[in-house]
Amino acid sequence: MNLLYSHAKKMPESRNLKLVLAYDGSSFMGWQTQPGVRTVQDTCESALKKILCHEVRVIAAGRTDSGVHALHQVINVHTSNPIPMEGLLRAANAALPRDVAVVSGEEQPPDFHARIMAKSKTYVYIIDTSEVFSPLLSRYVLHVRQSLDIASMQDAAVLLTGQRDFRSFQAAGSSVITSIRDVRVSEISARGQRIFYRIQGSGFLRHMVRNIVGTLLMVGTGILLPEDVGVILEKKDRRYAGPTAPPEGLYLLGVEY
Amino acid sequence: MNLLYSHAKKMPESRNLKLVLAYDGSSFMGWQTQPGVRTVQDTCESALKKILCHEVRVIAAGRTDSGVHALHQVINVHTSNPIPMEGLLRAANAALPRDVAVVSGEEQPPDFHARIMAKSKTYVYIIDTSEVFSPLLSRYVLHVRQSLDIASMQDAAVLLTGQRDFRSFQAAGSSVITSIRDVRVSEISARGQRIFYRIQGSGFLRHMVRNIVGTLLMVGTGILLPEDVGVILEKKDRRYAGPTAPPEGLYLLGVEY
Repeated sequence: MNLLYSHAKKMPESRNLKLVLAYDGSSFMGWQTQPGVRTVQDTCESALKKILCHEVRVIAAGRTDSGVHALHQVINVHTSNPIPMEGLLRAANAALPRDVAVVSGEEQPPDFHARIMAKSKTYVYIIDTSEVFSPLLSRYVLHVRQSLDIASMQDAAVLLTGQRDFRSFQAAGSSVITSIRDVRVSEISARGQRIFYRIQGSGFLRHMVRNIVGTLLMVGTGILLPEDVGVILEKKDRRYAGPTAPPEGLYLLGVEY
Repeated sequence: MNLLYSHAKKMPESRNLKLVLAYDGSSFMGWQTQPGVRTVQDTCESALKKILCHEVRVIAAGRTDSGVHALHQVINVHTSNPIPMEGLLRAANAALPRDVAVVSGEEQPPDFHARIMAKSKTYVYIIDTSEVFSPLLSRYVLHVRQSLDIASMQDAAVLLTGQRDFRSFQAAGSSVITSIRDVRVSEISARGQRIFYRIQGSGFLRHMVRNIVGTLLMVGTGILLPEDVGVILEKKDRRYAGPTAPPEGLYLLGVEY
C-alpha cells in the first residue's frame, strides 16, 4: 500500500495541455531556443516553469523566424500539475512579458503533438503601398514604395496551389527529406493600399512564405510575369525565385488539426 | 552688379517650412537631442541635412517623452534650398528610418514658429482592459488588467477643463514660470474594452497628461472619487495626484495654430 502510494506520487497522472499563443515577433530572435538571445520558446518555457513548478519543454506547431508574428501559434506541454486551465491562463499572462500572450488553452489526449498532428497552417503577409506609410506600422507591415499590379499577383499566387515541389522557394542550404508540400490556399486580396497574401498548406519549408512573397512582389512590379511562377516551380532551384521578403509583414494566422 | 550678385548668392531668400511628422516613439529616447541616444529630433535633423545640404535645426511644437508616439507633430525648419516641397517630402521619407515619416509640408511666413505659435495641442491616451491583451499592441496601448468605472472617469476628466493651475500634475522638480494652463477638452470615451482619454490644451507641463491619466486610473479603479480630482488640483502639490502612466499609450494627435 505504502509502496503503491509513493509510486503514485512519483508518477502522477500526466496532462497534455494545448495552448494557443499570440506574440509580437519584433523583439524576439524567432521561436526556437538559442543561447544568449531572447526567443519565444525560452520566454514561454521560463514563464510556464514558474507556474507549473517543474522544467518545461514546449512543442510548437511551427517555428517562426526572427521578426515574424503569430496571432495563433499552437504549443503543447506535458505537466502533472493539477492547476485548473483558467488559473493557468491567468498566471501565464501575468508571468509572460507584454509581447507574448496565451489566448486560450484546453486539455488534450496524451498523444496530442502540436507539430506532428497539425494538418495545416495558415500564414498571412501584409504589404502596404501608401505613399506615406504610418511609422506605427513599421514592425507589422511591409511598406513597398510603388504601386503593385494586383491582378497579376493574384494570377501568380493561384499557380502555387496544389501538391508541388517547392524547392525553388526553400531557403538555400536547407536539408529536408522532401520539399513537396500541399498548398490549399494561395491568394492575394487588396483593400485600399493594403495587400494581403494568405497561404494555407500542409507544411512550409524554411523561408518558403517569404520567398514566395518576394517572388510575388516581382510579379507585382512587372519584373516577372504571372506564368513565370510556374517556371520557377519547375526549376526546383532557389536561384530562380525572388528575394526573401522581410519578416515584419508575416503572421502565423492559424494551425488546423 | 557683380557685388550685388555675389551678395545675393550668400544671402539667398530664406524659406520657412512647416512639416507634419508621425512617429513610433517606442525606439526613441524621446524628441529632444541628447548625446549618445537615438532621438526623433536628431533623426530628423540628420535626414534633412542630407537633403537640404546644410546643417539643420528643427523646432517642434512640443517635445514628446521616450516611448510617446506622434500622429501629428509639427516642426519648422529654415532653409535656403529651393527644393520643391513634393520632392522634399519624398526624399525625406526615403532618408528617414521606418519609424518616422513626414506626412505633409507647406511654406510658411518667415516668422512662423512651430512651438511659440501653437494655439493648442491635442493628445490621446489609449487604455485596454481586455482580459487577454494583444501582444501586438504592447507598445501602443496601456493594458490594465481590471475593469474600470468609465462613468466615474468621465466625471473626473471633465473637472480638469478650464484655465487652472496644474501644478499637482507636473513632474516633480520642474521649473516653469507658471503652471497655469487652459484645458479646452478633457474627456473619456470607451468602445468595447478600449478606453480613450482625449485632452486639448493651450500647453502642457512636463508629464502632465500621463500624471492626469495615472490619476484617472485611480478613479476608474475606485481608489479615488471623481471629485477628488478637484481637491488634487487645489492642493497644487504633485504628491496628491496619481502615478505617472506609462508612455506607450500616449499620442500627440494634433497641433492647432
